[in-house]
Amino acid sequence: MPNILFAARSERWDDYEAPLRTALDAAGLTYTLAPEMPPETVDYIVYAPNSDVQDFTPYSRLKAVLNLWAGVEGIAGNPTLTVPLTRMVDDAGLTQGMVEWVTGHVLRHHLGMDRHIVNPGHVWDPSEPPVAPQRPVTILGLGALGQACARALLALGFPVSGWSRTPKDVAGVRCLSGKDGLRDALSGAQVVVLLLPDTPATRNVLNAETLALTARGAFVINPGRGALIDDDALIAALDSGQIAHATLDVFRTEPLPQDHPFWVHPGVTVTPHIAATTRPDGAARAVAENIRRGEAGEPLLNLVDRAAGY
Amino acid sequence: MPNILFAARSERWDDYEAPLRTALDAAGLTYTLAPEMPPETVDYIVYAPNSDVQDFTPYSRLKAVLNLWAGVEGIAGNPTLTVPLTRMVDDAGLTQGMVEWVTGHVLRHHLGMDRHIVNPGHVWDPSEPPVAPQRPVTILGLGALGQACARALLALGFPVSGWSRTPKDVAGVRCLSGKDGLRDALSGAQVVVLLLPDTPATRNVLNAETLALTARGAFVINPGRGALIDDDALIAALDSGQIAHATLDVFRTEPLPQDHPFWVHPGVTVTPHIAATTRPDGAARAVAENIRRGEAGEPLLNLVDRAAGY
Repeated sequence: MPNILFAARSERWDDYEAPLRTALDAAGLTYTLAPEMPPETVDYIVYAPNSDVQDFTPYSRLKAVLNLWAGVEGIAGNPTLTVPLTRMVDDAGLTQGMVEWVTGHVLRHHLGMDRHIVNPGHVWDPSEPPVAPQRPVTILGLGALGQACARALLALGFPVSGWSRTPKDVAGVRCLSGKDGLRDALSGAQVVVLLLPDTPATRNVLNAETLALTARGAFVINPGRGALIDDDALIAALDSGQIAHATLDVFRTEPLPQDHPFWVHPGVTVTPHIAATTRPDGAARAVAENIRRGEAGEPLLNLVDRAAGY
Repeated sequence: MPNILFAARSERWDDYEAPLRTALDAAGLTYTLAPEMPPETVDYIVYAPNSDVQDFTPYSRLKAVLNLWAGVEGIAGNPTLTVPLTRMVDDAGLTQGMVEWVTGHVLRHHLGMDRHIVNPGHVWDPSEPPVAPQRPVTILGLGALGQACARALLALGFPVSGWSRTPKDVAGVRCLSGKDGLRDALSGAQVVVLLLPDTPATRNVLNAETLALTARGAFVINPGRGALIDDDALIAALDSGQIAHATLDVFRTEPLPQDHPFWVHPGVTVTPHIAATTRPDGAARAVAENIRRGEAGEPLLNLVDRAAGY
């Protein structure tokens, strides 16, 4: 009978308690679930990196930490954590939301919607946009989220290239990897979507050098992690016209500080870290499945490679 | 050896001559193609309804009129036309463009993009939007364009209802027809997409009565025909909050007159009849295939039912 600690900010407990109990019951588990319990009694921690639990040393019988979010940069490097760590990958909420947000903003830029949404001069200019097959999109990051977005964009007719640290093979996607692959992936791209994890190897992956590789007037869309972009290099590329517009959902500091130049730059759209949010129902099912696996001695899903950082 | 008259505004000839010759050659035809020829020698007319040809009586050996656009309301009722009339359905341009525009604007409203695109107060409000499976979309019109849009929206997870004059069966779509079906189709819809032809039976299909059937705060998207909407009823529904926003690509008068209230209403986005444009290459292939069929005695594709008006 596992003891499950819910370690996240207290308002989350209100959202998650009922879905977690429903999902754990449905998984056939007998358990204790609470937002507080003596550390030495805890078997599993359902975890948000901004919780009070930062030192895992007292959790002497801990079997695994199940992160509630996709990003694990706030815990992956924690030296007191010595048990398996999983990240959240739930199709129903997080992936679905990400596909909608990415597809929506790719289409927005592709169709040039903004000039119709904001048109104070009432200009009627029926110039013909290109169709999707003429608009190459490059996705940096081919994990579950990157692959799901690639499939949605392919279905709409966009030619999709994808880049990942290690080689991948995704049907219909021109897959590239490694350092040379990054050059190839970005060369001529008209839309660049960032869905990489935040690791030392990916930080500032979009910088002055790599931003110069895209097609002139390309669009940058970042629902991944703020640290993937060198902010100053992006603003310079926007000012020069190399990048036509950037739509950014994630930032090095969130909420984005009021004095950050992104707020006032005409070529930047800020969205408030909404591209993909974990929904309690889907997340609870993913957590329950992993606890069931842990109790049954089966391998956990979505294990984090602590050395790689994701 | 058919004589083919290209009857459209003269600037179109520059766009279409080369693609038409390429497609007619590829179809294995020997032909004469010109923007002017004696009426009594013409076998086929490639036609735009705003061309100078309005009286078909002198075209004594005419076999068919091949309309360059999807809409045929400018010719379907012409009493001097006594030969088969076809309309344009070309996947490569018109359908592709329509799917992109409809999917893009459905996602824009679904995600509430406008409040991020225009955010002068720099508001950071990460409120969680619903996911597509919680956002029912209704498409009025299940022709080639309506079905293609339905498939794209289904693939993204939206529940799709469709309505057509005659019963249809489209996989995954809740298909409704007839007058009672229209009530069912609109009841509770959160997004309504208009892709009906302009006929006496469809004019003002969105009016005070039918606009009251949708979910409160629904979105109206019209890439079909301007006459499908009672403009005054739509503005009243926007003012009352019954409709949250309308994105309109087509109007009773185009370009939309500068004094039309749609230009200044905060709940209306005007796009300049760009949702789907015929692309010369795809259109030329469709025209050539129908001329090949005509010469081979095979049935023409995309024939207009003159009594129904589309």
